[in-house]
Amino acid sequence: MDKIRIGIVGYGNLGRGVQYASAQNPDTEVVAVFTRRAPETVKTVLPVKVEKYEDMKNYVGKIDVMILCGGSATDLPAQSAEVAKLFNTVDSFDTHAKIPEYFAALDKSAKDAGHLSAMSIGWDPGLFSLARIYFGSSLADGSTYTFWGKGVSQGHSDAIRRVKGVKDARQYTVPVESALERVRSGENPQLTTREKHTRECFVVAEEGADLARIEREIKEMPNYFADYDTTVHFISEEELQKNHGGIPHGGLVLRSGKSATGNKFLMEFSLKLDSNPEFTSSILLAYARAVYRMHREGKTGAITAFDVAPKYLCPLSEAEQRKELL
Amino acid sequence: MDKIRIGIVGYGNLGRGVQYASAQNPDTEVVAVFTRRAPETVKTVLPVKVEKYEDMKNYVGKIDVMILCGGSATDLPAQSAEVAKLFNTVDSFDTHAKIPEYFAALDKSAKDAGHLSAMSIGWDPGLFSLARIYFGSSLADGSTYTFWGKGVSQGHSDAIRRVKGVKDARQYTVPVESALERVRSGENPQLTTREKHTRECFVVAEEGADLARIEREIKEMPNYFADYDTTVHFISEEELQKNHGGIPHGGLVLRSGKSATGNKFLMEFSLKLDSNPEFTSSILLAYARAVYRMHREGKTGAITAFDVAPKYLCPLSEAEQRKELL
Repeated sequence: MDKIRIGIVGYGNLGRGVQYASAQNPDTEVVAVFTRRAPETVKTVLPVKVEKYEDMKNYVGKIDVMILCGGSATDLPAQSAEVAKLFNTVDSFDTHAKIPEYFAALDKSAKDAGHLSAMSIGWDPGLFSLARIYFGSSLADGSTYTFWGKGVSQGHSDAIRRVKGVKDARQYTVPVESALERVRSGENPQLTTREKHTRECFVVAEEGADLARIEREIKEMPNYFADYDTTVHFISEEELQKNHGGIPHGGLVLRSGKSATGNKFLMEFSLKLDSNPEFTSSILLAYARAVYRMHREGKTGAITAFDVAPKYLCPLSEAEQRKELL
Repeated sequence: MDKIRIGIVGYGNLGRGVQYASAQNPDTEVVAVFTRRAPETVKTVLPVKVEKYEDMKNYVGKIDVMILCGGSATDLPAQSAEVAKLFNTVDSFDTHAKIPEYFAALDKSAKDAGHLSAMSIGWDPGLFSLARIYFGSSLADGSTYTFWGKGVSQGHSDAIRRVKGVKDARQYTVPVESALERVRSGENPQLTTREKHTRECFVVAEEGADLARIEREIKEMPNYFADYDTTVHFISEEELQKNHGGIPHGGLVLRSGKSATGNKFLMEFSLKLDSNPEFTSSILLAYARAVYRMHREGKTGAITAFDVAPKYLCPLSEAEQRKELL
């Protein structure tokens, strides 16, 4: 069997995760990693060639799908349409407000070049988006809810680190159990931001810092914390490393609704993830398989998880899928 | 907007459910019901024309998708390939062992006629199949588990009714909570039939019947009960009607697995349904929308939920889907 030849663009947690995921998926192989750092400074978790970002053009015809593993703030908007001129791509773009413009630029670039680019792949956006569309389509009269956590929010952890006197920090987003129970009861509640999630912060302060001021500044921070019930725990650096060193995450999508006769229905999808980036990477790889197959069928342009029939994700043949999974 | 014109073939619980679901989906309308009974004896829950099964040929060009609402044992194998000669179809065929041959016959008939036929649609097969394929594709190294219930099994209730001295009965399939917890713990257990589900039977006996014999015959019944821990409760006819009159069901699909570095992941999808047939009908209608759209794009033959990109199920435009659901 010809393996699907994967390239990795950007080598942080996601890039490492794609390498690990490929090791679990024998129909794929990682051909090369592309980086804007000096290639010789990049230590990969499994043996693979590391190349300069600019040199990816030399891999045209040698790589089937590029998985873009950069961040949504600056990397992906700068790279995706550019890489799509040379290769099929998969990315995890998750800046929700900018999805329409990102889609338009990527779609044009990929279509013009005859490539296929899957965007906003992962678990949210991604699997959670799928739950929202399948649930909503299956049950017209109802309400859909998304909860995140318990898990580490990188953005909120970074925001705490920017507070004066903070040496390090880890922020957990936690769904409010009583809100979940209200949804599960079929009440179809209107939930405020504060009612859905709490924020739990573990903070290492610099020696002699004013803890009361740090706590106040965190709790009053607009957008990040002001609209939430926030708890701040000051802990030692050792404790942070020991108990909060991982990047767990997860969450739930629920839809509660009813039929025309008043019968009630509850649909629930949940994830519990020891490692947020490793799980995201594993999904990126599955969509690389789909992109490879759909491109061979002639599909080009930008797509999201909504455009991908599930059969394309699965390594089994279609007959095997019907026999074993249907 | 042109509505999607639906026909209903067979008018039992599922057929009624499709009518109710269409009332909740304004982009669809039910044009006619087709029955093998005398049409004038069929009372519909909402006003609609009722026609003889043989007369559906007069509706060619007037109906976009026929939803086949008969049973999997005899109705669907006899009807689906026949109806697919005249119309696009959707059905809920669920005899698992016969899926390959059913698919082959339907595929040939639909392809020859230039129609599109979605088979095995509902929640299992259907949404649960989707969970199995998405979960498995997202996480290569893991185990997938399906649990059913708590819910009424029509087949097992019928089996009890065939025991001598039984007037009426209702059988609930119940997932074993401790087995669920073992799966959720990440243990990846090998579970026997007996360990996964129990069977709870509510039986109305005829006056003077030998209750001990009835209970023994139920518990020892091969295939249906012998491999399970089964409980039998004898109750009055009034209690059966009052407390066991509904057709609730539900269940769970779980996948537990790990990354190459040993990080653990748990994916879980669950349904709690007050009415099994009404929920199934609602999904059949969503797939009728998908069949209508995919057929307009030129797709023909037999398909399952695995072949349908989620965008086709949702009444929103693709741009709206990306904006609101992604």
